[in-house]
Amino acid sequence: MRSSMGSWDNARFGTVNQTNRYANPMERAYFDHAATTPLEPRVLEAMVPALQYGWGNPSGIYREAQYAAGLLDQARDDIAGVLECSASEVVLTSGGTESDNLAIRGAALARQAAGRHLITQATEHHAVLHVMEQLEHEGFELTVLGADGEGFVEPDDVASVVRDDTTVVSIMLANNEIGALQPVGEIARAVKARNRRTIVHTDAVQAAGAVDIRPDVLGVDLMSLTAHKIYGPKGAGALYVRRRTPLQPLQLGGGQEEERRAGTESVAQAVGLAKALQLAEQERLQRTGHTSDLRNRLWRELNERVHPIRLNGPSDWSRRLANNLNVSFPGVEGESILLQLDLEGFAASSGSACSTGSTEPSHVLTAIGLDPDTAHSTLRLSLGQSNTEEQIDGIARTIEEITARLRALSPV
Amino acid sequence: MRSSMGSWDNARFGTVNQTNRYANPMERAYFDHAATTPLEPRVLEAMVPALQYGWGNPSGIYREAQYAAGLLDQARDDIAGVLECSASEVVLTSGGTESDNLAIRGAALARQAAGRHLITQATEHHAVLHVMEQLEHEGFELTVLGADGEGFVEPDDVASVVRDDTTVVSIMLANNEIGALQPVGEIARAVKARNRRTIVHTDAVQAAGAVDIRPDVLGVDLMSLTAHKIYGPKGAGALYVRRRTPLQPLQLGGGQEEERRAGTESVAQAVGLAKALQLAEQERLQRTGHTSDLRNRLWRELNERVHPIRLNGPSDWSRRLANNLNVSFPGVEGESILLQLDLEGFAASSGSACSTGSTEPSHVLTAIGLDPDTAHSTLRLSLGQSNTEEQIDGIARTIEEITARLRALSPV
Repeated sequence: MRSSMGSWDNARFGTVNQTNRYANPMERAYFDHAATTPLEPRVLEAMVPALQYGWGNPSGIYREAQYAAGLLDQARDDIAGVLECSASEVVLTSGGTESDNLAIRGAALARQAAGRHLITQATEHHAVLHVMEQLEHEGFELTVLGADGEGFVEPDDVASVVRDDTTVVSIMLANNEIGALQPVGEIARAVKARNRRTIVHTDAVQAAGAVDIRPDVLGVDLMSLTAHKIYGPKGAGALYVRRRTPLQPLQLGGGQEEERRAGTESVAQAVGLAKALQLAEQERLQRTGHTSDLRNRLWRELNERVHPIRLNGPSDWSRRLANNLNVSFPGVEGESILLQLDLEGFAASSGSACSTGSTEPSHVLTAIGLDPDTAHSTLRLSLGQSNTEEQIDGIARTIEEITARLRALSPV
Repeated sequence: MRSSMGSWDNARFGTVNQTNRYANPMERAYFDHAATTPLEPRVLEAMVPALQYGWGNPSGIYREAQYAAGLLDQARDDIAGVLECSASEVVLTSGGTESDNLAIRGAALARQAAGRHLITQATEHHAVLHVMEQLEHEGFELTVLGADGEGFVEPDDVASVVRDDTTVVSIMLANNEIGALQPVGEIARAVKARNRRTIVHTDAVQAAGAVDIRPDVLGVDLMSLTAHKIYGPKGAGALYVRRRTPLQPLQLGGGQEEERRAGTESVAQAVGLAKALQLAEQERLQRTGHTSDLRNRLWRELNERVHPIRLNGPSDWSRRLANNLNVSFPGVEGESILLQLDLEGFAASSGSACSTGSTEPSHVLTAIGLDPDTAHSTLRLSLGQSNTEEQIDGIARTIEEITARLRALSPV
């Protein structure tokens, strides 16, 4: 039995792909939606005409240019509509990493006369952490907050380290590895109560389509988004910039994006981001309902079938991304499970995709207290719209078999 | 009679576009290929399957990820094939502006222990000039060379300002406004003869598909490319980085692009760039033959029909982009001609697209000695594959009529 969401079938890997050089008749099931998602057919349908006919340079004054500018304006309006902000508060970027870099470095440099103290948390994405660390290397002062055993930080604990010279605080809305949904609204209020001029940024790359991301509700000044985590194209992102938030551009050249990001705008990518974001918001309850049902079923199945097993991150499902499971299988190498799963037709991750191939344990799992061995025994299973109950039962059964086999082989 | 290049018809604006809200039965002719180009149907054909099936995260280890990684590797190999360089010397970016920023800022920062002197020319794109100026503001020393009346700089004049502490020289291969083809090979050799450790960058954004851009032939260490000037998608670029050239990444996060540019790779955009670049190289003689024939015809027609008229930039066609005309009509506002041309079905530019809407005269025209009034009376007409002899005769006749009408209205 297939999922009732028929429109997703086209997006499934290998089922309709005649040109796939790795194609084979085997059914695949994808459990790494936190790394990236398939392109939604409705997003592709919006992008193709923009690629074909929206090719004009939006900076020109003639008809072809104005047609492209119209598509770009519409995309920006659509994004602003979802965020309930002004269109001029949306800066289009090449993705979440660029958005994070522009937010943190751009705000820190623009406000450095007022102070050079920055705050973030140890469980942030590297696109935040590495930028913060580079600024520290350049003479800024950096406070990196820890996390409790489930990945959270208390709003008061953030506020307590805010100083008069604190210019930028960055706390992510939803963690990409363990799914922790931070109380960013409360954090922003607590920070602003301590220093109303401190700029609050949130990386909402994993949160879009999962929780309320309206900046006015969250009280943030800067918010990073990307399309490819919500069934949009890769290489398309946005940074929400609250009016009057100082921001030094990182990419210089032409005057595009109101002097905040130079470079000829990618109209089709913006159209793809806008469509993906609109769909993610319109179908948010339906999508999160689908994935949380399956996620809960997967956890029940794994919990019944595999011992020992450990859930990493929030135990309160309401404080966790609906599609996220992060599970350790002590005594078994996560990478070994992954390779076996892949052979059996299942795609998953052992940590964040960015660190794949690395032998370092995940910095997020380390921050919530896992020892290196347990961190190395971890799988991240992130669900999406193409997943079905059959796939859940299939991957649970397969993980049971694989872990049993690997444990039997283990010298321990 | 249409151009014999039938495959380009699909790319023409308004002729096949049923969803274009500005669509009307009027035939359009596009003369602003230096600002951007239509997406080639064969490029779109390559991109759509990559969007549909190459959606995996190339950093993953499972099949979907490896399929995407395979497409990405192939795209990088294809680009390297055109450049005759190693695949690891190709860094994929979000476009020409990012490539220029990464090249200049990345190299200047990476080499700042060895020196802080930079050299460029006044006729460069703002994506080069503004980055150089920002570095100057941060304490680097900047030499901005002038240009002769046609936009050129002599290799010896570049070499004569190279010092022991000169770390980066950036001279563009083909000027986007006046089409000057700089002797970058000779410049690079002269610079290296003076200081072999000086890094030479060239912005080849306008040169790709027009002249030989192989880095080993040019002798450059860094070279910027973008897809949308060669009938590829917007938001897709590359930076050639010669092996062992020091480069500090500007965008931090994951370890993508061998630690030189963080962020999940946009597979489909890379595929589009690779296909566009391959086609541009394979069809280079055919394409430049087509545009130079038409460009020469256009100049003859304009020269016969309109007086006074002034050609800006190289008078020697062999030292000028095959598709470029930059012409002043003293006593007539370029913007006024443009608006009338648009109404008559012709798209063109009064300067570089990036400065459209600005009342400042073009910095390139100023650098080659035009006074502000003459600069403001200028049209850039840049030809492409969809243009036909009928369009040439049509735009020449129309410019004759418009300039006569505007001159009759002029108070002078």
